[in-house]
Amino acid sequence: MSGAWSTTVKIRFAYCDPAGIVYFASHFDILNGVVEDWFNDGLGLSYHDIIGRRRVGLGYVHAGADFRLPARMGDRLTYRVAVERIGGRSLPLKVTATRDGAEVLTASLVIVTTDIDRAKAIPVPDDIRAAATAYREKTA
Amino acid sequence: MSGAWSTTVKIRFAYCDPAGIVYFASHFDILNGVVEDWFNDGLGLSYHDIIGRRRVGLGYVHAGADFRLPARMGDRLTYRVAVERIGGRSLPLKVTATRDGAEVLTASLVIVTTDIDRAKAIPVPDDIRAAATAYREKTA
Amino acid sequence: MSGAWSTTVKIRFAYCDPAGIVYFASHFDILNGVVEDWFNDGLGLSYHDIIGRRRVGLGYVHAGADFRLPARMGDRLTYRVAVERIGGRSLPLKVTATRDGAEVLTASLVIVTTDIDRAKAIPVPDDIRAAATAYREKTA
Amino acid sequence: MSGAWSTTVKIRFAYCDPAGIVYFASHFDILNGVVEDWFNDGLGLSYHDIIGRRRVGLGYVHAGADFRLPARMGDRLTYRVAVERIGGRSLPLKVTATRDGAEVLTASLVIVTTDIDRAKAIPVPDDIRAAATAYREKTA
Repeated sequence: MSGAWSTTVKIRFAYCDPAGIVYFASHFDILNGVVEDWFNDGLGLSYHDIIGRRRVGLGYVHAGADFRLPARMGDRLTYRVAVERIGGRSLPLKVTATRDGAEVLTASLVIVTTDIDRAKAIPVPDDIRAAATAYREKTA
Repeated sequence: MSGAWSTTVKIRFAYCDPAGIVYFASHFDILNGVVEDWFNDGLGLSYHDIIGRRRVGLGYVHAGADFRLPARMGDRLTYRVAVERIGGRSLPLKVTATRDGAEVLTASLVIVTTDIDRAKAIPVPDDIRAAATAYREKTA
Repeated sequence: MSGAWSTTVKIRFAYCDPAGIVYFASHFDILNGVVEDWFNDGLGLSYHDIIGRRRVGLGYVHAGADFRLPARMGDRLTYRVAVERIGGRSLPLKVTATRDGAEVLTASLVIVTTDIDRAKAIPVPDDIRAAATAYREKTA
Repeated sequence: MSGAWSTTVKIRFAYCDPAGIVYFASHFDILNGVVEDWFNDGLGLSYHDIIGRRRVGLGYVHAGADFRLPARMGDRLTYRVAVERIGGRSLPLKVTATRDGAEVLTASLVIVTTDIDRAKAIPVPDDIRAAATAYREKTA
């Protein structure tokens, strides 16, 4: 994906389990941090403002990952985010993590936009839709 | 699934995020606890002994979940585990969580059995294969 | 402490780190679960209702622990809670965890009661004060 | 502390609880990441190599924190590490976190060096002792 935003994450001791590799739930936790940074730096929107001030939830209706290689303490993984589609109330993303070019995992994360206080799905807000559309076109 | 083992998990404060609902990565963490208990109580095998003493890894090559309803602090979710198939080196599970009969999430977790110290996949050990086969037949 | 409420927690795979023992931050996470259960079962008050509906925060102004023995996957630790004092806006607790009678950790947790929405300390609510006083007398 | 190493950490959504502030156990998790980075960048020693390859544990016999101000999503906290003393088998650290100059927390973390495989304390290895001594003198 030319033009795709990417970020590098250092694998910490705390992410790893007694088998010495990243615990799968920690992989999902890391992925959420990647999505946070992608909103801020890839889309130019404040993730924390969207959730904290605007009370728009950015949770997932689906999250899945294929783990192809184990990741260990001290590894540096590079994450890339692709927008698969821009739905009415959802934003399906595909995230890949690589280490020295080798694919460590691919993840499918389907964000649903919600009104946090009323606990219901809402249309993807205009600024998110516009930024995600521009990002998608740039990285197509 | 008649005969399926089930367990009830209380949703803790710590699992929840600023939107007041269970954080998606915590859902996966809870699911691992369910798989642990299922090994111990549903299959009659010691999860901790398999990993700690025998050094057989029970990590996942795939993990995915569809989140249908939010879960909140104090909720009690009932988890059921089904064995989808017994592979050569893998054990694909389907886990569902319900609250008062309503489906909160369904998850697909594909365990791959590994030699932790050599970091490679190994055939599903005989005792796990036998117990998973018996469980699958009982719950078919 | 005669009369003290206690609970047993099974040490999960996910709590443990690459050194094979419970990660120290996970120890604090487990301690919060113990405090939750102590509110519900030791004091007879709903922790989740206090925080979720009444919006009274039960966070800590101080948390500390001395770790005396490592805890491992599959261990069962018994936790006991003592009320050290009942302050104006705080509730200092001492929690101990043992395994087969041997002390694994002792923790000092100082709860401060807050108005979550205004983000400021408030006097310990009457029902919490009464229940903590009764618990303290019973376990003196 | 003139000369002290410092690092800035962005407070993520996942660190925060239903009260909207950093969950106390997550504060300890963040602190471990700070200690990791301090080993690597402040002491010039590879934290992951010490634990993973040399099998020297850097766990804590004591960890405590005073939480003075709540931290929220999107905050940027600056952490500073001071070496309080260099013990025979321990390394007591004091870590402070500030936001715009205001103290958010102070923590006391007492590392004990261990032989992970034999699960026992060992003298602080020479390279760690030398680096910590130099750091302590530089920041006195």
